[in-house]
Amino acid sequence: MEKDRLDPWGTSSVKNYERLQSEFGIAPAAPLLKRFKKPSTHLSRGIDFGQRDLGVVLDAIDNSKPYAVMSGIKPDGAFHLGNKMTADDMVYFQSLSKKARVYYSIADVEAYADNGIPFTESSKIAVRNVADILALGLDPDRAVVYKQSEEMRVMRLSTIFSRGVTNNMLKAIYGERQIGLYMSALIQAGDILMPQLPEFGGPKPVLVPVGADQDPHIRLSRDLAVRYRSDFGFVPPSAIYHRLELALTGGYKMSKRSPESGFTLDDTPAEAAKRVRSAFTGGRDTVEEQRRLGGRADICPVYDLYRFHFARDDEHVELVYNECTNGIRLCGECKQEAIGLVKAFLEEHHKKRDSLMNDARELMSKSRDYLASTGKQ
Amino acid sequence: MEKDRLDPWGTSSVKNYERLQSEFGIAPAAPLLKRFKKPSTHLSRGIDFGQRDLGVVLDAIDNSKPYAVMSGIKPDGAFHLGNKMTADDMVYFQSLSKKARVYYSIADVEAYADNGIPFTESSKIAVRNVADILALGLDPDRAVVYKQSEEMRVMRLSTIFSRGVTNNMLKAIYGERQIGLYMSALIQAGDILMPQLPEFGGPKPVLVPVGADQDPHIRLSRDLAVRYRSDFGFVPPSAIYHRLELALTGGYKMSKRSPESGFTLDDTPAEAAKRVRSAFTGGRDTVEEQRRLGGRADICPVYDLYRFHFARDDEHVELVYNECTNGIRLCGECKQEAIGLVKAFLEEHHKKRDSLMNDARELMSKSRDYLASTGKQ
Repeated sequence: MEKDRLDPWGTSSVKNYERLQSEFGIAPAAPLLKRFKKPSTHLSRGIDFGQRDLGVVLDAIDNSKPYAVMSGIKPDGAFHLGNKMTADDMVYFQSLSKKARVYYSIADVEAYADNGIPFTESSKIAVRNVADILALGLDPDRAVVYKQSEEMRVMRLSTIFSRGVTNNMLKAIYGERQIGLYMSALIQAGDILMPQLPEFGGPKPVLVPVGADQDPHIRLSRDLAVRYRSDFGFVPPSAIYHRLELALTGGYKMSKRSPESGFTLDDTPAEAAKRVRSAFTGGRDTVEEQRRLGGRADICPVYDLYRFHFARDDEHVELVYNECTNGIRLCGECKQEAIGLVKAFLEEHHKKRDSLMNDARELMSKSRDYLASTGKQ
Repeated sequence: MEKDRLDPWGTSSVKNYERLQSEFGIAPAAPLLKRFKKPSTHLSRGIDFGQRDLGVVLDAIDNSKPYAVMSGIKPDGAFHLGNKMTADDMVYFQSLSKKARVYYSIADVEAYADNGIPFTESSKIAVRNVADILALGLDPDRAVVYKQSEEMRVMRLSTIFSRGVTNNMLKAIYGERQIGLYMSALIQAGDILMPQLPEFGGPKPVLVPVGADQDPHIRLSRDLAVRYRSDFGFVPPSAIYHRLELALTGGYKMSKRSPESGFTLDDTPAEAAKRVRSAFTGGRDTVEEQRRLGGRADICPVYDLYRFHFARDDEHVELVYNECTNGIRLCGECKQEAIGLVKAFLEEHHKKRDSLMNDARELMSKSRDYLASTGKQ
């Protein structure tokens, strides 16, 4: 039996989420569901399947203590569905308490180093990415956005951490890699642990919403938190893990590198519709077969569009699943309905985002002023 | 026969400087001596024995073109004799043209990461270190001093470089090392190449005065300059190499880690005198033998004090050498004379430095304003 690999830089195949628990120590999210007044759709639909130390964050929420929600984006292009997943989690966990603050890292140094995108260019992309998150519901009053290329603290932490890790420790977590990827991992650890520095109020729970394939970064950050606890008092960061969305072309992970595997929030409704129309499905070879055996929603990226993003509510997801697997719903009509939902979402989203471009610029400049004012920059 | 090792992080043993030429491609400095109107004592005494592309810098001097002189210090304590050697070279090469500008990097991130020195502490040490260089003759009007912890450009370059090197390339230059040392090497490459960024006037010759043991950093920087030439137009940096001073305790390299191997510019004249008095020498077992065979100046750290730092002039060095090797001068009297010179130097230096502490602070704050004003920080 093939082993699951967790590879933040490759195309991870995760076929058995339950096994991640025993192999990597990711705890199931379900037992904690009862602690949420109104679970997010990601939680209620089992998309957020796993967690590490989520209880620590829930305690902070219950006791009105400060906590951080940390994530980031590489500004190398348009916001895609995977970015939306993480953003939805960020927005949800920010909404749970007035004491929550979002830290959002724009990895422009990586965009330059990996993709040759100049800083002037990534800076423009970043504004658009931030406008996307605002359109998805981020509260700008409790959010700090920063560029890696301007945040000395992240670099400083990563340098410090580079002395505290051994090559063996990195190999154990990531396998044998080139130094550039190790360095990138240490910079991400700097991003994740920065919200606990004294100028941001000191040690506190930090929740990082990630895809299952990003777990190595979480493990590294948690190891480093423990290793540097006596210096910084770090609380090991918490994580919530979402499933990886099936690619529209079939297979296990949407990827920026193959645009046809998904669509972006920059695509026109017509473009996105085209992608969905030609998507791989879990349908059978013939109508007769599908009526008799039912469709295979579990391997269907179109079903994932409903489940992960565009269904009206949980009941709608259930309806689609049942109709599909019972042979009531055929792929053509199912795609047609999905296309309608996608188009409606994109039209609405584009409108919202366009009206929020200035707010995005304002959030970035306000964040910049705030970060400079902490004095330890 | 034991091979020479060049190890920037260890105790390099360099017994045969001529061989560095054939093994590592360091060219001899002597053939270029005729291009200097007034060679420094390091050059005339063969202390600066080797170079890479020094001609490029001399061309810039001859043609009144801009060039940079780049060096740095880890602010983990007092300025020692090795730091003075590098500083003397910096001051000399700055003095050769009005178009020269010194870039001096305070490696406070490394002082923190390696030695646990907090930034508030290293900041104080740095002011004192800068005052030491000013006392040694640095012209503050053509010098930029910066802290690693504040200079985003260095970090950005090192991140970019981390993607352009392979583990094999680093192994070939440094041997198998922990990632922290590799990262430190990439940060130093960032320091060395930063003066060629557009905001500092773009590509230009950069001279790095270093001890022979630091050559791996020069090779890495030169490799990276070539690798990133199409992006940045980098000119491969030049270097001038000085011999390693013999330790007062005998052996091949003074080291901060064993204070008795040298003394610092913070030591009192009495403390330094004590170190010199108990120093290892190249003397013979008995007076009779020394009169008959002569002393061994070539393995004598006391002779090195004359030659590297404290002799009145070149003739004085020659006199000491001849008297020693001809059995005219005995170790006791030789030490006594050296102690006199060391004491006089330290008294004078302390006076100068104390009067320059404010100038040091001013240079650092002026540099900071300047660096911020370049706008690409």
